[in-house]
Amino acid sequence: MTLYGIGLGPGAADLLTVRGKRVLESVAVVYSPGRLSRRVAAEYVPESTLSDLEFPMTTDPEKLRTAWSAAADEVAPRARADDAAFVTLGDPCIYSTFGHLRRTLESDHPDVEIEIVPGVSSVTAFASMLGVDIDAGGELALREATDGAAPVGPDRLILFKVTDAPTTHEKLTEAGYDVTFGRRLFMDADETLITDDPDAVADRDYYTLAYAER
Amino acid sequence: MTLYGIGLGPGAADLLTVRGKRVLESVAVVYSPGRLSRRVAAEYVPESTLSDLEFPMTTDPEKLRTAWSAAADEVAPRARADDAAFVTLGDPCIYSTFGHLRRTLESDHPDVEIEIVPGVSSVTAFASMLGVDIDAGGELALREATDGAAPVGPDRLILFKVTDAPTTHEKLTEAGYDVTFGRRLFMDADETLITDDPDAVADRDYYTLAYAER
Repeated sequence: MTLYGIGLGPGAADLLTVRGKRVLESVAVVYSPGRLSRRVAAEYVPESTLSDLEFPMTTDPEKLRTAWSAAADEVAPRARADDAAFVTLGDPCIYSTFGHLRRTLESDHPDVEIEIVPGVSSVTAFASMLGVDIDAGGELALREATDGAAPVGPDRLILFKVTDAPTTHEKLTEAGYDVTFGRRLFMDADETLITDDPDAVADRDYYTLAYAER
Repeated sequence: MTLYGIGLGPGAADLLTVRGKRVLESVAVVYSPGRLSRRVAAEYVPESTLSDLEFPMTTDPEKLRTAWSAAADEVAPRARADDAAFVTLGDPCIYSTFGHLRRTLESDHPDVEIEIVPGVSSVTAFASMLGVDIDAGGELALREATDGAAPVGPDRLILFKVTDAPTTHEKLTEAGYDVTFGRRLFMDADETLITDDPDAVADRDYYTLAYAER
């Protein structure tokens, strides 16, 4: 029996892979770490198959370790008895909760078989929506930019989790970058936003990215 | 009518998205730029729907411009008359030929409607197969490393198109990185290789990536 870590893609249900769909439809239980991933998974499996795992939104390492440990303890016996899935938006290996769960399982329950079904990550979705080409000679850095952080570096950056867009915009502009924001791309059409204006995405939203180029 | 740029994913046919599959099955013609992408597309559409476009393997900008211009001239009338698709392995916006075709269409045939269907990129596939987590605090640079190039930078790098693995390995090791190579991941199972040994991937292969961490 196997625990599948399945990447659901950026949010639109039909951006799941054919393999992800097939595996989802075959497992006995689908764990989803949040509301948005649950919504996508529910397009493919009945509600009764869905099960939540609680992960606190905190950076306290002790609290996080405790939560991952509890999650691993719940998932392990189910994955030994039957095929199970843990779904995440995007890809299970890119800025995802799944990595923590996998590490905890590998240490606390090393007999659990784990298999990953990759998904369309938000990096890709973002580049697609903005018409950005990551081309042959190019270099691109991926970084996180919560709470007004504005890490700089090479000439092209994709910043995740831009929760204070005006501050990030100000700092990046000072550093010579042109900045475009994208929010909830490929999720519900009425929530999707692409803008150069930091004030349009000023409220805190975990699913805001910025592309910076100079 | 629309030209769809469809990302096929890393090579296994079932890593195409559900949307990609639906669009492929609906269009009148599917252009594929190479043998591998043709093989995946052929799982979904009859041979008679497939059409090749020639893109020379050269870095000569004049030759490339001529080739893209010819490709755009061929694609444009088909995309005006009916829905058409251009498929690429991975994602249409990440290290892909599609970006060049799109730019050429936008300049030479601006009336052609273009829509992108994102795909699982090789970045993601690579991270999945190697068990690498691109986690919250992390920084990762994506670069190309043809012909023994070994660009260095932040503590974690993914290098594309490693066509001289021993030389790239030597330079990265000197710069303090641990290096893992992956070749043809998620393509045919018998071609897939993950190794620390540069000599095992010494022959030239466009689909070789390296992950370097220090």
